[in-house]
Amino acid sequence: MNIVIAQSGGPTCAINASLGGAFREAEKSRHIGKIFGAFNGIEGIIDNKLCDLEEHIGGWSDYELLLRTPSAALGSCRRKLPDWKDDSSIYKTIADNLRKKDIGMMFYIGGNDSMDTVAKFSDYIAKNGRDIKIIGIPKTIDNDLCCTDHSPGFGSAAKYVCTTVGEITSDSTVYSIPSVTIIEAMGRHAGWLAAASCCIRANGESTPHLIYLPEVPFSNEKFLSDVMAKMKEHRAVIAVVSEGVKTDEGRFAAEAYQSGQVDTFGHTYLSGVGKYLERLVASEIGCKVRSIELNVMQRCSSHIASLEDIRSAEAIGAAAVRAGLDGKTGVMMAFVRESNSPYKYRIETVPAQQAANSEKFFPREWITPDGNDVTDDALEYFLPLIQGELSPILRNGIPMNLTISE
Amino acid sequence: MNIVIAQSGGPTCAINASLGGAFREAEKSRHIGKIFGAFNGIEGIIDNKLCDLEEHIGGWSDYELLLRTPSAALGSCRRKLPDWKDDSSIYKTIADNLRKKDIGMMFYIGGNDSMDTVAKFSDYIAKNGRDIKIIGIPKTIDNDLCCTDHSPGFGSAAKYVCTTVGEITSDSTVYSIPSVTIIEAMGRHAGWLAAASCCIRANGESTPHLIYLPEVPFSNEKFLSDVMAKMKEHRAVIAVVSEGVKTDEGRFAAEAYQSGQVDTFGHTYLSGVGKYLERLVASEIGCKVRSIELNVMQRCSSHIASLEDIRSAEAIGAAAVRAGLDGKTGVMMAFVRESNSPYKYRIETVPAQQAANSEKFFPREWITPDGNDVTDDALEYFLPLIQGELSPILRNGIPMNLTISE
Repeated sequence: MNIVIAQSGGPTCAINASLGGAFREAEKSRHIGKIFGAFNGIEGIIDNKLCDLEEHIGGWSDYELLLRTPSAALGSCRRKLPDWKDDSSIYKTIADNLRKKDIGMMFYIGGNDSMDTVAKFSDYIAKNGRDIKIIGIPKTIDNDLCCTDHSPGFGSAAKYVCTTVGEITSDSTVYSIPSVTIIEAMGRHAGWLAAASCCIRANGESTPHLIYLPEVPFSNEKFLSDVMAKMKEHRAVIAVVSEGVKTDEGRFAAEAYQSGQVDTFGHTYLSGVGKYLERLVASEIGCKVRSIELNVMQRCSSHIASLEDIRSAEAIGAAAVRAGLDGKTGVMMAFVRESNSPYKYRIETVPAQQAANSEKFFPREWITPDGNDVTDDALEYFLPLIQGELSPILRNGIPMNLTISE
Repeated sequence: MNIVIAQSGGPTCAINASLGGAFREAEKSRHIGKIFGAFNGIEGIIDNKLCDLEEHIGGWSDYELLLRTPSAALGSCRRKLPDWKDDSSIYKTIADNLRKKDIGMMFYIGGNDSMDTVAKFSDYIAKNGRDIKIIGIPKTIDNDLCCTDHSPGFGSAAKYVCTTVGEITSDSTVYSIPSVTIIEAMGRHAGWLAAASCCIRANGESTPHLIYLPEVPFSNEKFLSDVMAKMKEHRAVIAVVSEGVKTDEGRFAAEAYQSGQVDTFGHTYLSGVGKYLERLVASEIGCKVRSIELNVMQRCSSHIASLEDIRSAEAIGAAAVRAGLDGKTGVMMAFVRESNSPYKYRIETVPAQQAANSEKFFPREWITPDGNDVTDDALEYFLPLIQGELSPILRNGIPMNLTISE
């Protein structure tokens, strides 16, 4: 029997480590023949764009580069499959294409939408008497996949956010005049990444002074009064804000601003919440203010990846292969945390259906009553996930990446 | 005789290494007693805010942290002194304050504006029969200081830009649909930082596909036709653009997006050429497009600093102290490159006056005739400056910094 591994959804620093972990585990099994990679997720299976992974990541030096390569080495997609009861043709194509290559197991690394694909395809297979197993491997920098303690990719993104917020803290305190710095982190619905910036306090920093998450209704007035209060204590105030903070009517905080302005081409000026709050502070407080969008660097800064994240991504990829060999299908692999200190986890399986249809929000009990900070419980949750480094492999002074071409 | 060291201008990753190099060299001299640090540049001397550096960076572990701390450990300022012939009172205050502490030499680490201070103050001293030496130590991430091969701080900023453009390249190629990514680098008038992104080609990358610098007039029409031409060759086109690109009438390309605010030196605050071009591509080409502003991370990402930059910053700080002991004053220390490969330089002195009043632009002969890329000569110039790493010292998984408090 052969197997195929595919990657889906947004890029992360750890999705290639899960590919690697699954590959190495599969290599060890005498039940598995060829290990295929599908290009651009499920699209590669539909379009018959596969490669023999042995040729690309079989050698140790390629494998080590793979672990240090951000994004998704096989490419990704954002394709959502229809319900198979409405339209089964695409499912038949997928199943036929897999059978033609004698592929009996498929591993799909991704987030909510990918788990939806795992759930739907396994259901189709079960109801149509075919014999292909499909197993989901979690991945998302947003950490909003439910049924798992955390998702691979999040730890590295959190480590980048902490490192950068620490460095921006040094940068912002350089002048003797009062200033406000607003750092915009990813997270449209769940505030895990912005919240993780609290970890720099474990090193004695007072920053970030304020943290705003989508889980708490956002108000301009409250934000301004929070900032003014912090300015009495600190010369350089630093606030970390999730891109998705919303007013109590559920509208994104920057929405009014976005719809209110038009650029030189007559298009609505779509800017992030950071820029919006920068303008707000400039007009209402009138001090020096800067906003910084951490942008895609949050998800692709492999050079400062968390070793714990990379190793656990490999481990969960390997566990997925073992679960497949044990006969599991239609499941997502999941971390269960056993203790914070010493940090211990085990890996289990959960129904992919369950993971696909809900989002894991940042717990309200880890947000301070005032709604502008997080608690020490959050810090204890985050810290194990950002530990350790995987030093980059450099050539010409620049980190090297692995490229897998079709 | 005591000495004082002060830091001025914008933050960099190497300004603390120059402070460290000067400190260590001064420690070795039997002619030098106390080594003071002035808080917030010249302001600390005016306001008598000094510290004994031995207490803060005398130990090896503090010294190692200092080398890894971005920004300016003593704080900075952007204060421009008047011409002393118009108003000498501030010069008298500075000279008196220095003499009161038996300070016979002052070392000022900074960029153009700081060299202006060095030139003016040494002129005042010479014409008023006082005996205080003042020596400038170059620093700028923009690399626009003239009379020196390069400036400390630039190499680390360039290494950050290269690392990040490489990672964004991986990130941007993940989907199978065509896309354009615009990366905005710092550089108001000189395009050195954007140009340095060419180094990733030394590792076999085809990116960046387009590079735009302020040294060449920018036109929206040319930019759009360049992008469309590159889209025929590459699925994911990546363009790196200096924040200060200007139209042929000398207006900043993104002027519509500027606040109109100016800083204390009369510099216009720039932001938004990336966002401006993103809108332009969206409206005129209509494909998937994203802009990324590298923002202050370019100047404060010490965790990926260039070892060559840090070591040469220490070396030029040490050389400044030796020059002062040799009787030099009113000069800026400067690198003279002797060869690219093997990379060799020597350190000399140049009149601070000369460095203060001109800007070093990116050479036109290193820009391709088409004006949208740089040549291999540029690559050879840049590569030595980004070599080597100074691994961060981490606690709790996050790089540590040194804080020197008043």
